[in-house]
Amino acid sequence: MAPGTGPVHEALAALPLVDHHCHGAVTADLSPEAFASLLTEGAAWPGVSPWDTPAGLAVRRHCAPLLDLPRHAPPEAYLDRRTALGHAEAGRRFLTAAGAEVFCVDTGYAPHPLTSPAELARAAGAAAFEVVRLEQLAEAVAARGVEPGEYAAVFRSAAEDAVRRPDVVAVKSVAAYRTGFALDPRRPADAEVTEAAARWLTAGGRLTDPVLVRHLLWTAVELGLPLQLHTGFGDADLRLHHADPALLTDWLRLTSGTVPVLLLHCWPYHRQAAYLSAVFEQVYLDVGLALHHTGPARCRAVLEEALEITPFRKLLYSSDAYGLAEFHHLGALCFRGALAGLLQDRVDADELTLSDALRIAAWTGRDNARRLYGPPVSEPASDPSGRPTRKV
Amino acid sequence: MAPGTGPVHEALAALPLVDHHCHGAVTADLSPEAFASLLTEGAAWPGVSPWDTPAGLAVRRHCAPLLDLPRHAPPEAYLDRRTALGHAEAGRRFLTAAGAEVFCVDTGYAPHPLTSPAELARAAGAAAFEVVRLEQLAEAVAARGVEPGEYAAVFRSAAEDAVRRPDVVAVKSVAAYRTGFALDPRRPADAEVTEAAARWLTAGGRLTDPVLVRHLLWTAVELGLPLQLHTGFGDADLRLHHADPALLTDWLRLTSGTVPVLLLHCWPYHRQAAYLSAVFEQVYLDVGLALHHTGPARCRAVLEEALEITPFRKLLYSSDAYGLAEFHHLGALCFRGALAGLLQDRVDADELTLSDALRIAAWTGRDNARRLYGPPVSEPASDPSGRPTRKV
Amino acid sequence: MAPGTGPVHEALAALPLVDHHCHGAVTADLSPEAFASLLTEGAAWPGVSPWDTPAGLAVRRHCAPLLDLPRHAPPEAYLDRRTALGHAEAGRRFLTAAGAEVFCVDTGYAPHPLTSPAELARAAGAAAFEVVRLEQLAEAVAARGVEPGEYAAVFRSAAEDAVRRPDVVAVKSVAAYRTGFALDPRRPADAEVTEAAARWLTAGGRLTDPVLVRHLLWTAVELGLPLQLHTGFGDADLRLHHADPALLTDWLRLTSGTVPVLLLHCWPYHRQAAYLSAVFEQVYLDVGLALHHTGPARCRAVLEEALEITPFRKLLYSSDAYGLAEFHHLGALCFRGALAGLLQDRVDADELTLSDALRIAAWTGRDNARRLYGPPVSEPASDPSGRPTRKV
Repeated sequence: MAPGTGPVHEALAALPLVDHHCHGAVTADLSPEAFASLLTEGAAWPGVSPWDTPAGLAVRRHCAPLLDLPRHAPPEAYLDRRTALGHAEAGRRFLTAAGAEVFCVDTGYAPHPLTSPAELARAAGAAAFEVVRLEQLAEAVAARGVEPGEYAAVFRSAAEDAVRRPDVVAVKSVAAYRTGFALDPRRPADAEVTEAAARWLTAGGRLTDPVLVRHLLWTAVELGLPLQLHTGFGDADLRLHHADPALLTDWLRLTSGTVPVLLLHCWPYHRQAAYLSAVFEQVYLDVGLALHHTGPARCRAVLEEALEITPFRKLLYSSDAYGLAEFHHLGALCFRGALAGLLQDRVDADELTLSDALRIAAWTGRDNARRLYGPPVSEPASDPSGRPTRKV
Repeated sequence: MAPGTGPVHEALAALPLVDHHCHGAVTADLSPEAFASLLTEGAAWPGVSPWDTPAGLAVRRHCAPLLDLPRHAPPEAYLDRRTALGHAEAGRRFLTAAGAEVFCVDTGYAPHPLTSPAELARAAGAAAFEVVRLEQLAEAVAARGVEPGEYAAVFRSAAEDAVRRPDVVAVKSVAAYRTGFALDPRRPADAEVTEAAARWLTAGGRLTDPVLVRHLLWTAVELGLPLQLHTGFGDADLRLHHADPALLTDWLRLTSGTVPVLLLHCWPYHRQAAYLSAVFEQVYLDVGLALHHTGPARCRAVLEEALEITPFRKLLYSSDAYGLAEFHHLGALCFRGALAGLLQDRVDADELTLSDALRIAAWTGRDNARRLYGPPVSEPASDPSGRPTRKV
Repeated sequence: MAPGTGPVHEALAALPLVDHHCHGAVTADLSPEAFASLLTEGAAWPGVSPWDTPAGLAVRRHCAPLLDLPRHAPPEAYLDRRTALGHAEAGRRFLTAAGAEVFCVDTGYAPHPLTSPAELARAAGAAAFEVVRLEQLAEAVAARGVEPGEYAAVFRSAAEDAVRRPDVVAVKSVAAYRTGFALDPRRPADAEVTEAAARWLTAGGRLTDPVLVRHLLWTAVELGLPLQLHTGFGDADLRLHHADPALLTDWLRLTSGTVPVLLLHCWPYHRQAAYLSAVFEQVYLDVGLALHHTGPARCRAVLEEALEITPFRKLLYSSDAYGLAEFHHLGALCFRGALAGLLQDRVDADELTLSDALRIAAWTGRDNARRLYGPPVSEPASDPSGRPTRKV
């Protein structure tokens, strides 16, 4: 946990990261209650302050100094200072401290008003691209009104339109939340989709029909862009054991040769995700959300487990930060520290050469994402302003 | 693993613990075979001595000195000395060494003659309260004879009578052993319960009917007391994967706003339990049984995993000791050493302030249980004898 | 990770191991592509070199010096030198470096031409015995032609013939790959077997019928030899979550009192396997394949988890090496280093005596296998040549 030293730490500290999956930051000052509720995947309950968590401790330790406060500042002082600076200035400090050259932003979940990718990019002095959440798209199609028999075609067309935008670099599904992965892996027949769409369009509500979720996943692979899948850890709206990525095995077998599949977060099933990344060409993973929620004290342990068998070309960095720009910063800080620590220790033990360690650090922090997403992610600084021409 | 030093170690060494889930100690001297069988969750098999386990090593290392033997005394010497002292004196030594102010004792499982809570309290110089095991209560109802149509009401009434006793602080279910948690989460209809009761009352035996186990769990939430649930690790009478607490998700959602639910043991699903504690207000956890079975060499690793995302208000201490008072002591020793070690290291790495560390130590060792169970657990030393007025 | 010192390291370095589950080494020089594909449980994919994995790094670090190359030699230099030496000489170096007295060789999987047990023994200067893979035997029975009604008897008879050979010390099933363990645990009725055989013998292909896999497992317990079961980690032809050994619980209960069951590999379900070994007399485990795939940087962590509650009589060593003799060596190197490291640390922390540590080291590296398999494994050096009289 101690702040690391040595060439791998230095290299990772200087590396511009690609944060291949995150959300925007809030665009308003936050009440203590609102801030607390964003600190946790749960909620703020009487007598159980979200500050009294590993993530809360990490914010006090590693974010307070960026607000000109002492390390470990108490929550009240932290919030006062944050409000005094204003959300925009606080956000700017955390986002620039993250040291990312690219953020890939899931724009499909926003119960709070959040920065757009363009706003996030501006505040961070980085580039930002968009990840299209397919469930939101499907629900928008339903909300606009569609005949059951036309649902498949209209959804497909809407998805094709969405990914045609130059700033869109990936699609995402939250099937883990809706049905989990214990699904029939086969592509549903047209008639099944129509029948399921009829039920859903009548009943309304979120897309939770298993046939339509399968259809969404199969539509995703036809879009040609990398597919991000939430797996493992998330909020209360989840059956954790249904989000075990191992449950995707049959579907991964059927869809091999199509698009890259990025397993997000994965914890506590990160070893299962590592197995999938080792045996399926198209599978990649990160431990996103687990980085800042486990904090500096444990994120290295999680990352070490995730890397036990994962090919070094298959791990990516994400923060999965949502709402609090603190988490864009903390994710990067945790990732850099954890990865540098484990690589440096292996170099020191002569299990790894320094040049291999530096290569692995650059791959996982940046180059694997560049390779996978291609342009514009791989050319983020190609215009004179220092930000990519295709940025949002 | 080294005996720790520093203020957090000192604070935890001095902290009177609340052992919120344990059993009594045996009330007879034990043959070598009987002792060995209590050392393990398995059995004593030819050629595979239960002493040759992490728990067996821990007993020789950390319990032998309390019997005036050298550290690591061999099993024969240990047993000779234990018999020479007598079970009562040996028990007294271990129970006082545990340094608990309160034991919450599950009285519903006693294949051996065990100390009552009052006897345990006397031997330990502590207070002891009772945890009512609901399956035992249901089976007693069946044994006394009841009409199927009256089973629900009679069981409910028996449970209400049981929890009305002032020394009862919680109820417990071993549904994990009987059906596992992959149950329909809904409250069963009256007619279903009657039908299932008719089958069971005719067939006899333990309560293993899924409808009646569901009914028991739903009855539990109406009693108003905290509900302890065995999860994960236990003896051979278990399907481990059916004891994964993540399987409780839908039931936890349906019963939110009712009673606190304490997930006991959890290993190897302690990360799943941690997730539940982070997203459901009513969920708490411990790693009870895993502490002394993994021993000083590994209990810290288990506790670190359990605490990765668990809010610090959500972890409790229990020993789950059964039969051998050695385990009441070892559980406490393992917990204190593991928690102090991890907190002190974080203080040393400047990831945590000392005052926060001391607060977290007191919370998890004592105050979270006091807060959760309320009186009499929270007022354990309120009579002049130094033991609580409402103690058994 | 640092090369360990101290008496436990010395003892384990000198201990002749029993590698109770491995495969043969290739009998031809390998193209770079062929070598790379054997480095991984996945495949060699464009842009994702199997050298860029923990196993690849471990080969460069720990195998290169045995080919007279510097530590961390690059892949090209490694392959050139290996080819210059020839597969036989390279194999001889790695196999003797493994320091095993016995190899138990699964001869039922050989997509590449591999050394026979006798050839492996000769190259290693050790003894080698055979493990009969039952699925291959059943498929050979089918290939030779059999009436459905006679399948059970003919398979049984073929298995009895196979295990009667003096060099056969165990049988093995890959049910994990074929159906997984979420099977009806009961022995199938004769009529069911006949019916399933009729379907299979008509349809052809691999043995994947659930009734016939159950029948195979029940036949295995009648053969009287230890039964090795692949569990957990393996290649892409697996549903990992169906290979969780906890799923075997009911079957283990029904077959208790019959043959020893050896759970191979287990990762990431090694804690589940440890639980089974702690509560079922007949259950043993190893973390075979996970040793060289996680490599020196992580195999200790995996072994520590596997040993959290496992009785010390219940853990065995295997390499599960296939094809590359590098892995026969790396498995042994990882096992020795990891086990010695964890035991020595416990001795240093006074949690374990040196004599207990040495006993545990000898048990897990050799004696548990000798005890379990009996002769000829337990008498491997009984002829004047230094190799056992009953060796292949």
